[in-house]
Amino acid sequence: MNFELLTTDPGSKARAGKITTDHGVIETPIFMPVGTVGSVKGVHQKELKEEINPDVILGNTYHLYLRPSTEILKKAGGLHKFINWDRNILTDSGGYQVYSLSDNRKIKEEGVKFKSHIDGSFHTFTPENVMEIQRVIGADIIMAFDECTPYPCDYRYAKRSMHMTHRWLDRCISHLDKTPYQYDYTQSFFPIVQGSTYKDLRKQSAEYIASVGAEGNAIGGLSVGEPADEMYAMTEVVTEILPEDKPRYLMGVGTPINILENIALGIDMFDCVMPTRNARNGMLFTAHGSINIKNKKWCDDFSQIDEMAITWVDTEYSKAYLRHLFTVNEMLGKQIATIHNLGFYLWLVREARKHILAGDFVTWKNMMVKQMDKRL
Amino acid sequence: MNFELLTTDPGSKARAGKITTDHGVIETPIFMPVGTVGSVKGVHQKELKEEINPDVILGNTYHLYLRPSTEILKKAGGLHKFINWDRNILTDSGGYQVYSLSDNRKIKEEGVKFKSHIDGSFHTFTPENVMEIQRVIGADIIMAFDECTPYPCDYRYAKRSMHMTHRWLDRCISHLDKTPYQYDYTQSFFPIVQGSTYKDLRKQSAEYIASVGAEGNAIGGLSVGEPADEMYAMTEVVTEILPEDKPRYLMGVGTPINILENIALGIDMFDCVMPTRNARNGMLFTAHGSINIKNKKWCDDFSQIDEMAITWVDTEYSKAYLRHLFTVNEMLGKQIATIHNLGFYLWLVREARKHILAGDFVTWKNMMVKQMDKRL
Ligand SMILES: [Zn+2]
Ligand SMILES: [Zn+2]
Repeated sequence: MNFELLTTDPGSKARAGKITTDHGVIETPIFMPVGTVGSVKGVHQKELKEEINPDVILGNTYHLYLRPSTEILKKAGGLHKFINWDRNILTDSGGYQVYSLSDNRKIKEEGVKFKSHIDGSFHTFTPENVMEIQRVIGADIIMAFDECTPYPCDYRYAKRSMHMTHRWLDRCISHLDKTPYQYDYTQSFFPIVQGSTYKDLRKQSAEYIASVGAEGNAIGGLSVGEPADEMYAMTEVVTEILPEDKPRYLMGVGTPINILENIALGIDMFDCVMPTRNARNGMLFTAHGSINIKNKKWCDDFSQIDEMAITWVDTEYSKAYLRHLFTVNEMLGKQIATIHNLGFYLWLVREARKHILAGDFVTWKNMMVKQMDKRL
Repeated sequence: MNFELLTTDPGSKARAGKITTDHGVIETPIFMPVGTVGSVKGVHQKELKEEINPDVILGNTYHLYLRPSTEILKKAGGLHKFINWDRNILTDSGGYQVYSLSDNRKIKEEGVKFKSHIDGSFHTFTPENVMEIQRVIGADIIMAFDECTPYPCDYRYAKRSMHMTHRWLDRCISHLDKTPYQYDYTQSFFPIVQGSTYKDLRKQSAEYIASVGAEGNAIGGLSVGEPADEMYAMTEVVTEILPEDKPRYLMGVGTPINILENIALGIDMFDCVMPTRNARNGMLFTAHGSINIKNKKWCDDFSQIDEMAITWVDTEYSKAYLRHLFTVNEMLGKQIATIHNLGFYLWLVREARKHILAGDFVTWKNMMVKQMDKRL
């Protein structure tokens, strides 16, 4: 993997860059649509490519490990081939998913024992086997196995957990060294900064993570319920420390406003279920604020979904029709809203990139943040 | 509406024809995908046009009347504009849907009082108001309000019901005469033959229906659970009587084999939820038989969904991937299977048309019927 830092914004820490992997170029800042179990819900791979056009999508190790299973993925020749996606894929490590299982998992130094949400069967994730699983899945970028702490989290727990995440990182790295690539392309490994909402812990963790000299670095344990200001404060502490010449990935973030604010703090990569999940609940993001399309007020509004026309659905369908599809619970409503939202998210990061390159990012960002902070 | 009968097969009663309406040409035999409530479930209108390419789709008056309501459809300028579909639409009359409500409707000479399946509110359909509703929906082809009898149905009930359907037909026609078109195009009206599975009643009904001299004629009350042979026997009796120079529509039919056999008996138009509903349950129709894609045996079959490659999904995705999408209940699975099945149904009727025009329909039909009668 190669990362080229093209420019840093003079008025903020925003960066425009270019990652190159064996599956092509990722222009940063980037938003990665979430394809949990090998499908970005409601969107054909072809539509994703042609209409939304992300350079990279995300898969979840926890979900893919359970179904279709590493056995099937190995037989298929990896996730790219299995889902027929020839651009980049990033997989998380399952750390966040097992954290979400709360009562159905037990975290120990060795690893995490958890109960499958599907059939109740017991499984164990360790730094070692998660690296092996990610080798088989075959994403271009794979993540360290970490513990994600909840919010709020008491200081002692956060500190103990952070050090365990660091020890797990060492185990990930030494096991990866012994585990060859499964397919005819390379994989890059990103460690994850933890430390909850404590500046000193975040600083300490960022220093440790920076010290391992990985090809890219991630920030985890945010977007778990903390106020936006605390999130930004943590990002700021961490991006001060993480190397400038490596991409920085803020995991699980966030709203369009969160994304712009974190870009301003030096983040290059984002993923979040929000554009897809909220779409399925009838919430549309636009440059002028969010729309709850289920609202009665749209029932006879025959105007286009979004006059910005970022994707074809925006002008193809009316608000009244989309509202109707949600009212009668037709799949097509979710499909339309998902394409719209992902189109908007990708437009937003590409537009951010243009303004970083043009040198007027902060002015644009402040205008957009104000403009998007509305309910239509 | 104009109907041109291009040819009749020498070895059967199969016909190739061409219907022309204000929304374009419908080449017959045709299969009409069902867009119950203004959406062919899981398929964008654009995909429907570009990938499946039917000349006409169907909407359900009962569903559209309840939601979005005639008020909204009127404001939108009719269903074509509301859903953004500029080709032909046919609406049924709600007769079948209220019949399906069984315990929640009361049929009287005046009309049918029924309870909405959505909110339990009471409504009445009469021949008169159903004509008005269909004027507002604005389909190119609208259907008479009829009573659909169950299977089996005792002779006395079937006879009484048939005569009521005939009286309702008279009321439909005289009310339509007083109800102007709502939009800038015309609508054609099809009456419906009833008579359950009794040849003498079907004959009598077909004679009555033929006598009103409508632009096209339909056969209702079949595909309600009777054996295929009884269905074919009724079709045969009726197509002997219905005028040759008008299109004939067999409502609610059926499997690929049912469609070919009924084409051989002189039917020109079909609609059925089977390709779309079965798709959502993981059942694929192919020229070599049907596939239950949920079956474990497909879990590591990485071959294309269908090497015939009628629609792009057939070669884009593997059986193993599609099986996985159904296993994990991803929307995309239903979307893929729906496009596949509709593509196959439209291929089937277009192929039938080619063979009718080429004069070798029966040989082809017999080969296909044999070939499709398998589970893969
Ligand atoms: Zn440490
Ligand atoms: Zn009669």
